[in-house]
Amino acid sequence: MAVNIKPLSDRVLIEPQEAETKTASGIIIPETAKEKPQQGKVVAVGNGKKDHDMTVKVDDIVLYGKFAGTELKHEGKEYMIMREDDILAIV
Amino acid sequence: MAVNIKPLSDRVLIEPQEAETKTASGIIIPETAKEKPQQGKVVAVGNGKKDHDMTVKVDDIVLYGKFAGTELKHEGKEYMIMREDDILAIV
Amino acid sequence: MAVNIKPLSDRVLIEPQEAETKTASGIIIPETAKEKPQQGKVVAVGNGKKDHDMTVKVDDIVLYGKFAGTELKHEGKEYMIMREDDILAIV
Amino acid sequence: MAVNIKPLSDRVLIEPQEAETKTASGIIIPETAKEKPQQGKVVAVGNGKKDHDMTVKVDDIVLYGKFAGTELKHEGKEYMIMREDDILAIV
Amino acid sequence: MAVNIKPLSDRVLIEPQEAETKTASGIIIPETAKEKPQQGKVVAVGNGKKDHDMTVKVDDIVLYGKFAGTELKHEGKEYMIMREDDILAIV
Amino acid sequence: MAVNIKPLSDRVLIEPQEAETKTASGIIIPETAKEKPQQGKVVAVGNGKKDHDMTVKVDDIVLYGKFAGTELKHEGKEYMIMREDDILAIV
Amino acid sequence: MAVNIKPLSDRVLIEPQEAETKTASGIIIPETAKEKPQQGKVVAVGNGKKDHDMTVKVDDIVLYGKFAGTELKHEGKEYMIMREDDILAIV
Repeated sequence: MAVNIKPLSDRVLIEPQEAETKTASGIIIPETAKEKPQQGKVVAVGNGKKDHDMTVKVDDIVLYGKFAGTELKHEGKEYMIMREDDILAIV
Repeated sequence: MAVNIKPLSDRVLIEPQEAETKTASGIIIPETAKEKPQQGKVVAVGNGKKDHDMTVKVDDIVLYGKFAGTELKHEGKEYMIMREDDILAIV
Repeated sequence: MAVNIKPLSDRVLIEPQEAETKTASGIIIPETAKEKPQQGKVVAVGNGKKDHDMTVKVDDIVLYGKFAGTELKHEGKEYMIMREDDILAIV
Repeated sequence: MAVNIKPLSDRVLIEPQEAETKTASGIIIPETAKEKPQQGKVVAVGNGKKDHDMTVKVDDIVLYGKFAGTELKHEGKEYMIMREDDILAIV
Repeated sequence: MAVNIKPLSDRVLIEPQEAETKTASGIIIPETAKEKPQQGKVVAVGNGKKDHDMTVKVDDIVLYGKFAGTELKHEGKEYMIMREDDILAIV
Repeated sequence: MAVNIKPLSDRVLIEPQEAETKTASGIIIPETAKEKPQQGKVVAVGNGKKDHDMTVKVDDIVLYGKFAGTELKHEGKEYMIMREDDILAIV
Repeated sequence: MAVNIKPLSDRVLIEPQEAETKTASGIIIPETAKEKPQQGKVVAVGNGKKDHDMTVKVDDIVLYGKFAGTELKHEGKEYMIMREDDILAIV
């Protein structure tokens, strides 16, 4: 289902996923790491900037740092919005 | 009704909107988030800069960070003025 | 009456105006805002820089942040001098 | 065995290696150094950026600073993810 | 009388002038301003930089901020030396 | 004897040399200087960057600041690794 | 007599000169100035950088700030080494 939020510039809207613990096929975030990577699904992508073409696509599962981006709620769901450069990897 | 304030450079003049709580179709701002996104309607847009063409248009509903921009009052109304890069998304 | 101060580079010389309170047609500065915009009349404009053409003109009424620029007195009058990029909007 | 994590931009995914002590052929990290270099094997490499082509390749053994990058766990293994510019040398 | 100090790059050598108080035709520096502009006469000008052509000329009277530049004495006279970008205006 | 460490980017691997004291032909580091320059022999040089061609060569004796770079041990020897821009001079 | 130290990049090697006090033809450094300019003779000059051609030449007498550069001793003599941009003027 599409979301009616259009990120500006090089920003990405992400639906966070619960970090699974000890599942062999899942990403497990170390509890004690100072800056823990987080995982989520991309739900909307900005148009990029003159010097930054966007790489991630809707439905990509991405990892990002714990302190990256800004939380927002929309129609009862929680999202994260951040610059693509704050995304560490696609899994 | 037009407003007689012309933002300079890549700035945007925004009329803040009350954050609705628990409306299924509205943006709900998390109470406890450290940096809460805010919502408003664009009422005036600057001409941009050499390396920054403007994206938002008058009447767009936008989200922006809590600490973005500067407050100002004009003819009894409260506005926010900020650089377009401080706007997170169009909704 | 012309003023014999020529701002250098992308600077603008401004004659501050008293902030009017409660006038329907005037800009009203919120008392409690942390960074209050200020209002003034442009009296002299620098030649700009290679990557910055000047936008404001003499006699424009402009808004600027409370902590922008430097005060100076000349022939008994008080002025503000600041970079054009510190000016928020033309009213 | 390939890993299903694709680092974004100029980032590199590294499998850390235990620092061997006193082996003549191994890298020995000084215990008392303020910023100790660490060693690991490259397991995945991003596509680089417009102004940064990637140098390291999968299976390279690399040295990096102690405070570089972010830890993450995937399918029970611990990795480091960092920008290539945080990698000091290939050994 | 010429001075045998050649400022390097985009620097300017200035002979400070006593701030006149209450003279109708002079610049009067506000006593209480946090960052007081200062006045002086340009006595030597550097050759500029690749991206900075010099604007001020010898004998220009200029205003500059209180904390701009470095003091130096030469043949019994006190001078200020600063980058042209620290000069606010020509009067 | 060649070393099997390849510095990345614009980095240089250096074998530090004992600072000789009071030898007429050696570099003598002032004991009380706040930031003491250090001396060493270049043992490996990176490929440089797009905007930085490398100047130093293997076997050059170089001076560098006390707090420049990172220490590492390899096959029982101590090295310094740093960006070429942290090297002050060739002697 | 030539010195066998070759400054790297845009650096300059300087032999400091005692600040003469009260000599009519010398540079006199104000005792109380917070950041006192210093004087010295250029003894070696680097090759510059892509965006910085060198201006000073060997035997130029230059002024520089008190906290500029790094001290080093060579064959019993004390030198200063600094980037050319830290040199204020040629006298």
